Amino acid sequence: MRMPVGIIGGGPSGLLLAQLLHRAGIESVVLERRSRAHVLGRIRAGVLEHGAVELLREAGVAGRLDREAEVHHGFSIAHRDALHRVDLAASAGHGVTLYGQTEVTRDLYDARDAAGGTVIHDAEDVTIHGADTDAPGLTWREGDEPRRLDCDFVVGCDGFHGVSRRSIPAARLTEFERVYPFGWLGVLSRTPPVAEELIYARHADGFALCSMRSRSLSRYYVQVPLDDRADDWSDDRFWSTLRARLPREVADALVTGPSIEKSIAPLRSYVAEPMRWGRLFLAGDAAHIVPPTGAKGLNLAASDVRYLSDALIGFYREGDERGLAAYSERALARVWKAERFSWWMTSLLHRFPETGPFGARMQEAELDYLFTSAAAQAVLAENYVGLPY
Amino acid sequence: MRMPVGIIGGGPSGLLLAQLLHRAGIESVVLERRSRAHVLGRIRAGVLEHGAVELLREAGVAGRLDREAEVHHGFSIAHRDALHRVDLAASAGHGVTLYGQTEVTRDLYDARDAAGGTVIHDAEDVTIHGADTDAPGLTWREGDEPRRLDCDFVVGCDGFHGVSRRSIPAARLTEFERVYPFGWLGVLSRTPPVAEELIYARHADGFALCSMRSRSLSRYYVQVPLDDRADDWSDDRFWSTLRARLPREVADALVTGPSIEKSIAPLRSYVAEPMRWGRLFLAGDAAHIVPPTGAKGLNLAASDVRYLSDALIGFYREGDERGLAAYSERALARVWKAERFSWWMTSLLHRFPETGPFGARMQEAELDYLFTSAAAQAVLAENYVGLPY
Repeated sequence: MRMPVGIIGGGPSGLLLAQLLHRAGIESVVLERRSRAHVLGRIRAGVLEHGAVELLREAGVAGRLDREAEVHHGFSIAHRDALHRVDLAASAGHGVTLYGQTEVTRDLYDARDAAGGTVIHDAEDVTIHGADTDAPGLTWREGDEPRRLDCDFVVGCDGFHGVSRRSIPAARLTEFERVYPFGWLGVLSRTPPVAEELIYARHADGFALCSMRSRSLSRYYVQVPLDDRADDWSDDRFWSTLRARLPREVADALVTGPSIEKSIAPLRSYVAEPMRWGRLFLAGDAAHIVPPTGAKGLNLAASDVRYLSDALIGFYREGDERGLAAYSERALARVWKAERFSWWMTSLLHRFPETGPFGARMQEAELDYLFTSAAAQAVLAENYVGLPY
Repeated sequence: MRMPVGIIGGGPSGLLLAQLLHRAGIESVVLERRSRAHVLGRIRAGVLEHGAVELLREAGVAGRLDREAEVHHGFSIAHRDALHRVDLAASAGHGVTLYGQTEVTRDLYDARDAAGGTVIHDAEDVTIHGADTDAPGLTWREGDEPRRLDCDFVVGCDGFHGVSRRSIPAARLTEFERVYPFGWLGVLSRTPPVAEELIYARHADGFALCSMRSRSLSRYYVQVPLDDRADDWSDDRFWSTLRARLPREVADALVTGPSIEKSIAPLRSYVAEPMRWGRLFLAGDAAHIVPPTGAKGLNLAASDVRYLSDALIGFYREGDERGLAAYSERALARVWKAERFSWWMTSLLHRFPETGPFGARMQEAELDYLFTSAAAQAVLAENYVGLPY
């Protein structure tokens, strides 16, 4: 098989790139290691920046989002048993859109189906060939059937554990990493969310987050030790831990119910540089991971896809290679700023025993300052809604 | 001897408090362990916030300052071999005043002399008595002569190593501390400053600062390992190290000369809570230390003195004890914000080997972001010129 672009990974970044290229008349193949049902079964947050929503509109996949998604004009930070609202709209000019990553992915699959795009699921042993030559290719197996794609470019959208980044010689990559000494225990429950907007809670016992998928589906998180297991946490223990970390007024309003999903995720900051090796380009989690505190993961994937689709379209339409040459540097400039914001917001709101009492006081002083400074709120807001592309 | 207020420490905070009380008709005694010549021989930075200058005016000691001091409307940060100016006046409404701490102290001594205030030098073995009673007192020796003061209140303005804080039972104090793994090597030289405004340099090799005392007297600093000694640093080594950390354009303009003072100071963040025990009140370095990066040490002493003089005047004029009761909390609220800012600015600009390559990238990303965000510059500016009292 021959196609201009081979995309590894059938998550939102791979599908969005395929869709944007298709609308520019450039065809691609998307290879996904898992089944579609598995991909659509993953539960992920969904705070979308303005730029990501614009890109989904440009890709023609925002119809349902524009009908169903809620725009949040602010969120709250709980500190010293009180709620402090960050007014995103007032500080940054607009809010964020709440729309689950699963829904984004579903809409993208529908669009790829409608366009007759090639998305191959259950692709096993995906291997990249000749990424550093002018004639790259991909091989994989479908069941026992060996398959091959010849293409001009390979794009790795296959996440942190995917094959793409690992195909780049170690000597050609520089990796930066910070692993946090805790994880997030998340619970999904069919209960109405405790508040209309998100609540990020800083508490001496640890971080907590009140989030939602819909008016009847809530998602809550608490900071837990890294070696805890979800099985250690009964629903009762989860709810009482969450309640203890929330201001009284919020805890009293919390509606609890049986968990329908419960899992622990580690927190990691990670960047690999550069995001290109020859004709292989990395996008999204394949190149960088942020802790979820700033809700930047999907949004960084979107800005990578924005830069890369522009670059590929420039190449195929005008023969202009400058966009491809500049892709890694352009994407990384934005990635590092979002890494910084995610690290800062994580550092501000979690319990870090290793920084001692002085570190805890720095957090408290920063929050006290934040709630009295319009400039500090503007910094938080402009980063949370997303820095310009 | 009996006086309403006994003040330990003849540095700027003790003298300023004595002067403000005197103007309100409240007399005090200042006890200083060293000679006046020694106190006036100390070399300290002199970046004064607007609030500190206002307080010196209110104390009637700003005549020379208003004639001689330079107002700086901005400073620069050097990063990636380029200078980026922070426009304090544009971002925060006003700048800062450069006037050495030694000059402030000299003006205060002149004012105390003119008013016939009691400042006792070479006071040895100063001891606080009955701070937790209604009848506190101070004893000391002048030569072989034992002396005693009975007073209503004792104020400890005697710095980090002074007797005041150590007189409070350990169980009544909570201490917070962060010691940084490096020091500042400072050099004073009779050379024209390399620039009109201060330059804070972030460099992979370590921090540097270009500062000045006057148009012909420069003060430069470089970050050095904590176990270095000033004797290890020849003038040549100092100048070449400094030059290597500055952007080319600055390094080329640097005029060097023999050092007339050379010393290494450690960097420390420290707060003791509360700032009161019975009738003993702490002010300035006796209660808190900041690393010098944010130039907050003297300014925090000034805001402490502002709160405490208001409280004492309220007590003597109106019999109102509320100011005294609120002093510690009020002072600490501002102290912690300045501690946060000083810690942040130190963390942003110094080399921290222990945070690894990821930590270095966080610094770079924060600086890159800072230079593109008006809101981030406003945060830096409003803290640098001083948060409201």
